[in-house]
Amino acid sequence: MTDMVFRTSFDHPALPVKAVERFMDMKDRGELGFVFLPGDEALLEASVEEARRAGAAGRNMLVCGIGGSSLGLRALLSALGTPSGCRVKVMESPDTRLVRAVMDSWDPRETTLAVITKSGGTVETLSLFMEFYPWIGDDSRVVAVTDPEKGDLRRLSGDRGWRTLPVPPAVGGRYSVLSPVGIFPAAFAGIDVRGILSGAGKVLEDFLESGTGSLAARVAAAALHCFHSHPVHVFMPYTDLLYDTALWFAQLWAESLGKAGPVRTGQTPLACRGPADQHSLVQLFMEGPMDKFVTVIGETPPPPGRVRPGPFAGYPSMAYLEGRSLDELRAAEEEATATALVERGLPVCRLGIPPVSPDTMGMLLMLYQIATVLTGLALGINPLDQPGVERGKVLIYKAMGREGF
Amino acid sequence: MTDMVFRTSFDHPALPVKAVERFMDMKDRGELGFVFLPGDEALLEASVEEARRAGAAGRNMLVCGIGGSSLGLRALLSALGTPSGCRVKVMESPDTRLVRAVMDSWDPRETTLAVITKSGGTVETLSLFMEFYPWIGDDSRVVAVTDPEKGDLRRLSGDRGWRTLPVPPAVGGRYSVLSPVGIFPAAFAGIDVRGILSGAGKVLEDFLESGTGSLAARVAAAALHCFHSHPVHVFMPYTDLLYDTALWFAQLWAESLGKAGPVRTGQTPLACRGPADQHSLVQLFMEGPMDKFVTVIGETPPPPGRVRPGPFAGYPSMAYLEGRSLDELRAAEEEATATALVERGLPVCRLGIPPVSPDTMGMLLMLYQIATVLTGLALGINPLDQPGVERGKVLIYKAMGREGF
Repeated sequence: MTDMVFRTSFDHPALPVKAVERFMDMKDRGELGFVFLPGDEALLEASVEEARRAGAAGRNMLVCGIGGSSLGLRALLSALGTPSGCRVKVMESPDTRLVRAVMDSWDPRETTLAVITKSGGTVETLSLFMEFYPWIGDDSRVVAVTDPEKGDLRRLSGDRGWRTLPVPPAVGGRYSVLSPVGIFPAAFAGIDVRGILSGAGKVLEDFLESGTGSLAARVAAAALHCFHSHPVHVFMPYTDLLYDTALWFAQLWAESLGKAGPVRTGQTPLACRGPADQHSLVQLFMEGPMDKFVTVIGETPPPPGRVRPGPFAGYPSMAYLEGRSLDELRAAEEEATATALVERGLPVCRLGIPPVSPDTMGMLLMLYQIATVLTGLALGINPLDQPGVERGKVLIYKAMGREGF
Repeated sequence: MTDMVFRTSFDHPALPVKAVERFMDMKDRGELGFVFLPGDEALLEASVEEARRAGAAGRNMLVCGIGGSSLGLRALLSALGTPSGCRVKVMESPDTRLVRAVMDSWDPRETTLAVITKSGGTVETLSLFMEFYPWIGDDSRVVAVTDPEKGDLRRLSGDRGWRTLPVPPAVGGRYSVLSPVGIFPAAFAGIDVRGILSGAGKVLEDFLESGTGSLAARVAAAALHCFHSHPVHVFMPYTDLLYDTALWFAQLWAESLGKAGPVRTGQTPLACRGPADQHSLVQLFMEGPMDKFVTVIGETPPPPGRVRPGPFAGYPSMAYLEGRSLDELRAAEEEATATALVERGLPVCRLGIPPVSPDTMGMLLMLYQIATVLTGLALGINPLDQPGVERGKVLIYKAMGREGF
């Protein structure tokens, strides 16, 4: 049972069994590391223990990481906050102003510096780390999250005696949120990380038990049906708490499924915020080209709200809102937007989720990881690589004078 | 002189003179209110004075506003911060949890409540305002920014004796950032709002003097050339400081140009963050469908950086970065990404801007407002309306029991 409800505005065939079979083959060959994370008690324990140590050392954590090493964590922090009262800041793009802003306001003696890069060689992450390392000035306050054996960061960690956590080799960057990459800083933030992994486990179990009838396979089947006909995938959760989850999804969907095979393939993910984007992008969705495939995500039921008192009786724009809650309004907006888009002829998927919680986040994150891989396999695409970014890397290395490139 | 440099990777014709002529006609008829804002000294002074009063009353400002009444302000705050040391928080989507988070941590006696809606009837804005109003509990701490005569909010303001600022009737929501909508809270934040309007005035002057040869017309001409052939507009500033500016642009571009005329027309804006999105979306841009029109924005020259010391000599992934600055790296990444995308055959525009400042922000905001209107006029589209969102509004009113809808 996943406590999630998925429905579509359109009919479509079930996911081809072959996609599920290929998934299982890859899993059995150990290639899909992310499916083993919900059950990896030792890895979870290592993150929790390291977070406890960091928490005892100070109330701040500075995370240097980018892409797969930042987006999942940002999704967790936005949705679930920092219940421990600690501060966690994620540094992604190299920008001296952003670094100075931290150095001017944080106390390094209260700060753990976490450097997260699976390969151990990510240029943005390492350059930011190199700025912060002398400022921290204490090897006992550094934690490296990286490949267990390979890479310069692993070697440097050994040489300097830093604490480390592993990213399992079969866990790709954009599939790593449930590994120490996301779980270690989330645990430091005081988030119930066991709850996250438990939620993820439920969706995984549903998939392993029900195959093409599972929630993940149904999500993939709907997307597959519209993948070529609707080149833009609007991903619109109806709470700001999940906007960073939409950005996490955007990487997952774009990088996994945007590939030059025999033909160029891909569907552009468009991370949206409901209701805010009703006042920004919905005009285009309603009247612009019919190229949008829409996923609307809403909490069911909406969290309990309150009744507003006030002197608004004589004002028609306000009077009807008295006695209603913000969340009731938000749910009505979700329904209205989905209905209006369906009326216009766009294919709309609705995902009803329980109110945002660690369990819900685990379910969501696992759901879209499995669904993305399934969609890729059904399309005949390798959903795990990203060959298209190599050219840019070579040009950066060249400009920065890195030898051997 | 605008201090901005624009170039494209592709040849294209100049903007049709007719588009500029239509712009001038509309301006002369008073329909394009935003072009009069840089010269409206009285309106500026009113915002500055109201901000000074609010600042004397307390150090917090809570802004209820959405869409055109929030995105421009968010762009200014992200780019320019809060030099006054005050706190400004923008509340957009109705969500009880977000409201509680403010009420649990802010002191209402230190807070000004700004409610911003041009029509005076925006449901999200008013519902949030209705939550916060009893909490503030002091009519002297409320400032309403709305139409000078029409709407329930204007009437209520009169009845309750609230302070008010006008949104000039000819200034549409998504073209209102340089009116009190953006300028009043920005002034409260301590931002040099005169600098913003001065920058905006430079771009406007350039357009009025140079017509089709102006920066704004050249930006529009490039976009027009690719508008139908490349249905996705990737808008990628190379500093996180401008990500919210990209979201502001997304509304402007989507809502102005996504229209059902004789044919459905529109180009989907995709707000990106360079360098972060190299690790998220660039794989898709490189290998996916050739449907992207790309605008890359970078600061020229990059702000001065620092040299990093550290024990990194023996580690190839790090050694080459010693002696270089984060901003040098960021500029190299911008160049590399643009080059790689051009090599792949995508049309790329490069906009070089001075380092982010009030002057730069004013230039950017005015540039894209003019360019968007020009693009719409050249396409034969009304860039000022948004008829497609009406259906959703009717459904919301119906669900919430508003009579007469």
